[in-house]
Amino acid sequence: MSDLKEYLAERCQTVDAALDRLIPSAGTRPATLHKAMRHSVFAGGKRLRPILCLAAAEACGGTMENAISNACATECLHTYSLIHDDLPCMDDDDMRRGVPTCHKVYGEAMALLAGDALQALAFELVAKTPATPNHTAAAMVLELARTAGSLHLVGGQVADLEGEGQKLPLEDLRFVHEGKTAALLTTSVKLGAMSANANAAQMQALHDFGMATGLAFQIIDDILDVTQTSEKLGKSAGKDVASEKSTYPALMGLDASRAEAQRLTEAAHRALDVFGDQATRLRQLADHLLNRDY
Amino acid sequence: MSDLKEYLAERCQTVDAALDRLIPSAGTRPATLHKAMRHSVFAGGKRLRPILCLAAAEACGGTMENAISNACATECLHTYSLIHDDLPCMDDDDMRRGVPTCHKVYGEAMALLAGDALQALAFELVAKTPATPNHTAAAMVLELARTAGSLHLVGGQVADLEGEGQKLPLEDLRFVHEGKTAALLTTSVKLGAMSANANAAQMQALHDFGMATGLAFQIIDDILDVTQTSEKLGKSAGKDVASEKSTYPALMGLDASRAEAQRLTEAAHRALDVFGDQATRLRQLADHLLNRDY
Repeated sequence: MSDLKEYLAERCQTVDAALDRLIPSAGTRPATLHKAMRHSVFAGGKRLRPILCLAAAEACGGTMENAISNACATECLHTYSLIHDDLPCMDDDDMRRGVPTCHKVYGEAMALLAGDALQALAFELVAKTPATPNHTAAAMVLELARTAGSLHLVGGQVADLEGEGQKLPLEDLRFVHEGKTAALLTTSVKLGAMSANANAAQMQALHDFGMATGLAFQIIDDILDVTQTSEKLGKSAGKDVASEKSTYPALMGLDASRAEAQRLTEAAHRALDVFGDQATRLRQLADHLLNRDY
Repeated sequence: MSDLKEYLAERCQTVDAALDRLIPSAGTRPATLHKAMRHSVFAGGKRLRPILCLAAAEACGGTMENAISNACATECLHTYSLIHDDLPCMDDDDMRRGVPTCHKVYGEAMALLAGDALQALAFELVAKTPATPNHTAAAMVLELARTAGSLHLVGGQVADLEGEGQKLPLEDLRFVHEGKTAALLTTSVKLGAMSANANAAQMQALHDFGMATGLAFQIIDDILDVTQTSEKLGKSAGKDVASEKSTYPALMGLDASRAEAQRLTEAAHRALDVFGDQATRLRQLADHLLNRDY
C-alpha cells in the first residue's frame, strides 16, 4: 500500500505539471479569469480522474504521453462542475478541497465564467489528443460531450437538486449517481483507453469497470458525508442530511451501503479480467477508492 | 431585399427544424432541464450564426446537409452564453428575444445548468459533423473550443464586466468586442467552410470576413442599445449607459461609430473577393447586419 501511496503522489505531480502547462498562465489576459480558473484547478484535488485515465491507457499498452491531454481534460471538466455546484444558486458551499470556493474568492460572476471556460478547455484538450487507428478525435470528443451533457453530468445534477427533500426510489438515486459521478469516471478510463488504441473488448471491460467503480465511489462519498468531519473531507460534511438528499445511507443504512460498495468493487475487479496482469494499478485504485476515509 | 427576407425566413426554419431534431425532446429525463434548454433555444432567435455558417459552406461549394450540425452547434453555444449572461450575478436581465429569460422561468440553478448542457451539446454537434480531407474533426472542435474559451468568448465577457464604470481605451474595447462577438461569428463561417472542405485561401478570407462583420455587428448592437426601444430589441435597451459600459457610441459618438461599422463592412466585402459570385449571400448578410434596426 505504501507503493500505491508513492504511485498516487507521483502521478498527482505529473498531472499537476501538465495542467500547469495546458492552462493559460495567471498573467494571461484577462488575468482575473485565469487566476480564478487556476485557483480551483490547483486547490489540491486528488486527480483521481486523470490518474484513472492514465492507468487505463497503460493497461491497454498505451503511453502517458499520448493520454495526458485527455487526462487533463477530465480534471478540467470535473473542476468546472465543482465550481458551478458550489455557487450560491446551487449547493452554496464556502469550502472545497480545503480552501475557499471560487466564488468566495473571485465573486459569483467570475466563478461562473471560470467554470464555463474550463468546460471549453476540456474539449480543447481532448481535441489535442492524437487520434488512433481505432478511435478518431470525433469519437473522443463525443465520449466527453455526451458525459458532460444533459443526459449524464448535468442531468444527474438536476435530478439530484429535484430530489432534495424527498425520498427517491433506488432506481432514481442510481440515475443521479450514474450521471453525477459514474459517467465521468467511466469516460476518464475510456478516454485513456482510446488514446492507447484499445480494442472493443478492452473498451467494454473499462466501461463496466468505470460504472461499477463510479457507483461505489459515490456510495462511499455519501457514507463519508455522514461519518467524517468537514476538516477531514476538505468540504462541508453533513450536507446531505441537512438538505434531505436521498443517499444510499439514507435509503438503506450504513452497513448495507458499505456492502453494496463492496459488491460493486468486486464487479469492477471481474471486469478487469481481460487485462491479466496489466490492470494491477486499476485494481489497486478500485480498492483504494473503496477503503478511503477522505 | 424581399428576396433576402424570404431567404432568411426559410433558413431560419431549416435551422429551427434541425435544432428541434438535435436537442433532446422536452419529455426526455430530466424533463425540466430539457424544457429550460428548449425555452431559450426556441425563444425566437434570428439564427444569424447558423445562417452565416450555412452560407459560408455554400460559398465554398459545400452542402447544407454537411454543415447543419456545425451550424446548430454555433447556435447552442450562442444560446448558452446568453443564458449565463442574463443571470442575476451577471447582467441580471429579465427579457431576451422578447420573452422572459431562462432563470426568470426556471430559476437560477436550472438556467445555469441549461447553459452548461448547451455548451456540451455544441461540442457534441461539432463532433458529429463529417470530417473532410482538409479538416479533421479535431480541427473543427479546436476551432469552437478556442473561441468558446478563456481567450475569446469568456475572456471578452470578463473584460466587459471589468470595464464597467470606466472608460476603456479603444484597444481594450476591441478586445471585448472581438471576444464577445466577432470570435463566434468568425468561427461560425469557418465551421461552415470546414464542413465544405475549404482551402487555405478560403479559410483566410472567411476569417477576415468574420472578424470585420463581427466587429461591425457589435458596433451596430451598441448603437441600437442607445437608439432603440426595449420592445423593438426584445431585450432591455439602454443597459450600456446605465451600467456605464464602454461602447463605440460612448467613446466616439454615434456618427463616427456608424462610419466605423460602414468601414468594417466594406472590409468584409473585400475579403470575399476570392469567392467571385459564390458569396452573394454572405455579402447580402453583411449588408443586412449593418443596416438592421433591431
